[in-house]
Amino acid sequence: MLRLYDSLLSGNCWKARILLSQLNLEYERITLDLVRGDTQQPGFETISRFARVPVLVLEDGHPIVESGAILMHLAEGTRFLPVDLYERTEVLSWLFFEQADLQKAIAFPRVYNLRGQASQMKDEIAYRQKDGYGALQKLENWLGNRSWLVGNSYTIADTSVFAYVSLAAEGGYRMDRYPEILRWLDNVRSTEGWVPLIEKETTS
Amino acid sequence: MLRLYDSLLSGNCWKARILLSQLNLEYERITLDLVRGDTQQPGFETISRFARVPVLVLEDGHPIVESGAILMHLAEGTRFLPVDLYERTEVLSWLFFEQADLQKAIAFPRVYNLRGQASQMKDEIAYRQKDGYGALQKLENWLGNRSWLVGNSYTIADTSVFAYVSLAAEGGYRMDRYPEILRWLDNVRSTEGWVPLIEKETTS
Repeated sequence: MLRLYDSLLSGNCWKARILLSQLNLEYERITLDLVRGDTQQPGFETISRFARVPVLVLEDGHPIVESGAILMHLAEGTRFLPVDLYERTEVLSWLFFEQADLQKAIAFPRVYNLRGQASQMKDEIAYRQKDGYGALQKLENWLGNRSWLVGNSYTIADTSVFAYVSLAAEGGYRMDRYPEILRWLDNVRSTEGWVPLIEKETTS
Repeated sequence: MLRLYDSLLSGNCWKARILLSQLNLEYERITLDLVRGDTQQPGFETISRFARVPVLVLEDGHPIVESGAILMHLAEGTRFLPVDLYERTEVLSWLFFEQADLQKAIAFPRVYNLRGQASQMKDEIAYRQKDGYGALQKLENWLGNRSWLVGNSYTIADTSVFAYVSLAAEGGYRMDRYPEILRWLDNVRSTEGWVPLIEKETTS
């Protein structure tokens, strides 16, 4: 069976859980406690060279790190990744943009807020938000009256960009500036098999 | 003919030029001046939704943005991208890691240094370098006595990670801490068709 090492609040892990659910794939979920330092334990680097979650361990024991690589691997051959080479490339562009421009810009301010460190970390939050607001505006411009990021249907480009953008308010971002983004977030939430960040069960 | 919009000093653009050279592909090179604001001109967003370089315009007129997406598109079906699904996924993991953890961490301090703004931007440089040193140490650990990042041959994982890491000293990073990285950078420089950041010709 597939095994997913994740954490309760990580948006990167959430992406993997959404897609696993949408693909109706069973998996063992191992939820690590990042504050306790679970990902920094000796031995964890043998499955995660970057000492972080998510890690998807395949049935043959091979681990996959980086949320974008997990999404691409799972989506191969499914309706969530186009067959057409140019559309696949478009999906990849969004996956890279999300990692380069949105993920840390939202995740760090969010973590500092959740841990009550917003005032202590205010300089770093300001510089992260400078990156993040620029990226959100580009996303808003692109969405215009589009329903989905690539082509005419939901793909892993949407799954990937959705996760942290939907959590941006927790990072102190003023999301009422972005009506197109808010509309598109609702589109993603209404896809079949979508799951919220926090579920009742810890094993799916 | 392929058309590459790039800039003289961008590491992300350099990746595309290295691979285009290694694939013996002819292309028209259009070098933009980022300081003058060429990428912020009205109209440029119609080919680059994120208003930045590189952009590879295909022969049919379709543009590709994000360096990782350009590398994946060009490498498809060549020896620079494995056929095996798991090895392809490994390549993608490195491409995502580079964008998430290395690119901005090196590019911003480097730009501030090159523009003589190091002292004015010292707080931001410190934040960025905190990210970057962590990522460089993970890269150093992984390289150990490996010759290449994935499998036993040079792939676009190496091309991608090489570009900014080879420029890290310009971003103020102390690279003498990383003997394995320095050895591997030389491996990449000695691959057939590799080109330096600045070439005499502006059209290849």
